[in-house]
Amino acid sequence: MFMKDKNKSVKLAILGIGTVGGGTFRIIENSHDLILQRAGVDLRVSRVLARSPEKAYRLGIPEKAVTSHIEDILEDDSIDVVVEAIGGIEPATSYMLKAMQKGKSVVTPNKAAVAKNWAILHEAAEKNDVTFRFEAAVGGGIPIITSIKEQLVGNNFTEVRGILNGTSNYILTKMADDNLPYDEVLKDAQDKGFAEADPTADVEGLDAANKLSILIALCFNMYVDPETIPTRGISRINEADIRSAEENKQKIKLIASARLEEGKLTCKVGPELLTEEDVLYNVNDEYNAISVTGDAVGEIMMRGKGAGAFPTGSAVVGDIVSASSTILLKRHA
Amino acid sequence: MFMKDKNKSVKLAILGIGTVGGGTFRIIENSHDLILQRAGVDLRVSRVLARSPEKAYRLGIPEKAVTSHIEDILEDDSIDVVVEAIGGIEPATSYMLKAMQKGKSVVTPNKAAVAKNWAILHEAAEKNDVTFRFEAAVGGGIPIITSIKEQLVGNNFTEVRGILNGTSNYILTKMADDNLPYDEVLKDAQDKGFAEADPTADVEGLDAANKLSILIALCFNMYVDPETIPTRGISRINEADIRSAEENKQKIKLIASARLEEGKLTCKVGPELLTEEDVLYNVNDEYNAISVTGDAVGEIMMRGKGAGAFPTGSAVVGDIVSASSTILLKRHA
Repeated sequence: MFMKDKNKSVKLAILGIGTVGGGTFRIIENSHDLILQRAGVDLRVSRVLARSPEKAYRLGIPEKAVTSHIEDILEDDSIDVVVEAIGGIEPATSYMLKAMQKGKSVVTPNKAAVAKNWAILHEAAEKNDVTFRFEAAVGGGIPIITSIKEQLVGNNFTEVRGILNGTSNYILTKMADDNLPYDEVLKDAQDKGFAEADPTADVEGLDAANKLSILIALCFNMYVDPETIPTRGISRINEADIRSAEENKQKIKLIASARLEEGKLTCKVGPELLTEEDVLYNVNDEYNAISVTGDAVGEIMMRGKGAGAFPTGSAVVGDIVSASSTILLKRHA
Repeated sequence: MFMKDKNKSVKLAILGIGTVGGGTFRIIENSHDLILQRAGVDLRVSRVLARSPEKAYRLGIPEKAVTSHIEDILEDDSIDVVVEAIGGIEPATSYMLKAMQKGKSVVTPNKAAVAKNWAILHEAAEKNDVTFRFEAAVGGGIPIITSIKEQLVGNNFTEVRGILNGTSNYILTKMADDNLPYDEVLKDAQDKGFAEADPTADVEGLDAANKLSILIALCFNMYVDPETIPTRGISRINEADIRSAEENKQKIKLIASARLEEGKLTCKVGPELLTEEDVLYNVNDEYNAISVTGDAVGEIMMRGKGAGAFPTGSAVVGDIVSASSTILLKRHA
């Protein structure tokens, strides 16, 4: 019995214990038995990298598990999976690469790092024969990435489009529903914690461009640097634009889209007028949605919460369990 | 090079070469190279069970691959994965069980057999250490089952509801859009091949109840025999019902739903009035959609084609590739 459980044991380190890292930790604590029963994985968070250890202690993480030195995690051969939840491109990318070189699987919600360093991260995973997953990088809790890679693997994709940024969707929804100007809604969103102090990446479409770059790579096996995607944000949308859309029974949404036609890719991020028939028309507030079209499946649309500790943590945990299942298969075979 | 490719080789048998079996075969033919590149699986259909071999020949399946004897497939140790696309409960269930006893993984779109024989099929898969997948059994091409089992594995689910039968959704949509009586729309749907000659299972909610039974088992780890789910169909919906709904800006949809509250499960299939705010309100024609609510992720909704050779075949192929990846991991470890 002891041996059997031991053989299901997968040890985890979480780098960064902010919103997503903290949410991930709490889901694993709450759902440990559920995950063991459903997936046969006995998941334990054995180390946490935290700049401010107090944050980790408040989550109930024991003192001996917390470190501020990445080496404590990289050099610990008992750790099977590393969750990178620091954010930003560096040192996040270097930590992920080093973890893979040490034979650890890596899970991350970090769209900026995945979009920027797509090739080197994937090459490192392949070279070191480890799993690299990033379901939470696009659409938060929406399982779009794994669906494209796995369940829809038999499809030639022709189009992918979506509402990929919750902050700008929230702002556009409030401007329309409450008849308020952009600046006022943005300030309100910042006060409520729905928008960051520096909202540039969200409202200017850069975050959506990162996510679109990842979707393009997955659907079309082509890499497009997010900085080269034609990108416009929502900061210049005014009340007259919103009213005029409403008069035509339309809504303005920040849409990221890519199409492959006769081998030629077109892609962009920017505000678009949607009619009622559009599957993205009723995706409001902080919700995200992605529509993907394949030659076999037709159009699939998925909608859900695109951000937040628990929706994003849900996707991170799904990735951890998938990576763990592969680790256990290799260990037992 | 030869050895490397040989190690990626997975051999497949398809039982039944009707709509779904045929669609699956054609997707594998079209997407063989794509699947090899994306998933590292060299997928070959080596045997096909067909009652009328002509149907198989018309798809380009060579004569020596076609058999009308199930033993030719069960006794062939080179076959790794069996796709059951015969439909119905028997002999489909027996064939699946026998294939698993022979160490073969099984993939099926057969909701009636999976719902009816949930426990024995799952026990056989576990006992024989093979993969058993049935993504296409609910929602056709929509990747809801794998999402619930894998990407959303960290969630305690509280509710699942959906439009799970394309035929009845098509009929209800046409009745509303074209202002036509039930009988006339049904006949038109039968002429177009959207409804079967005996439409009972679709229009009386039995098909939706089978699918709901599967969703309940996945979400709540409880088995409910589909025959015990309170089920009403759409055959008594008349034009006055539709008009009255429209006057209130509502739509009538055949909804399958289940809720878990304080350990108590409630579930039913029947026509419901939906308001515009409902995520299922705009799911029209032959489209299906499923909404699932988890404590971490919140509400996730997925929409797509719920039937047809290629959408259903897309899900079957996704399952085949997943099963194959596991087989290759075990073979190489």
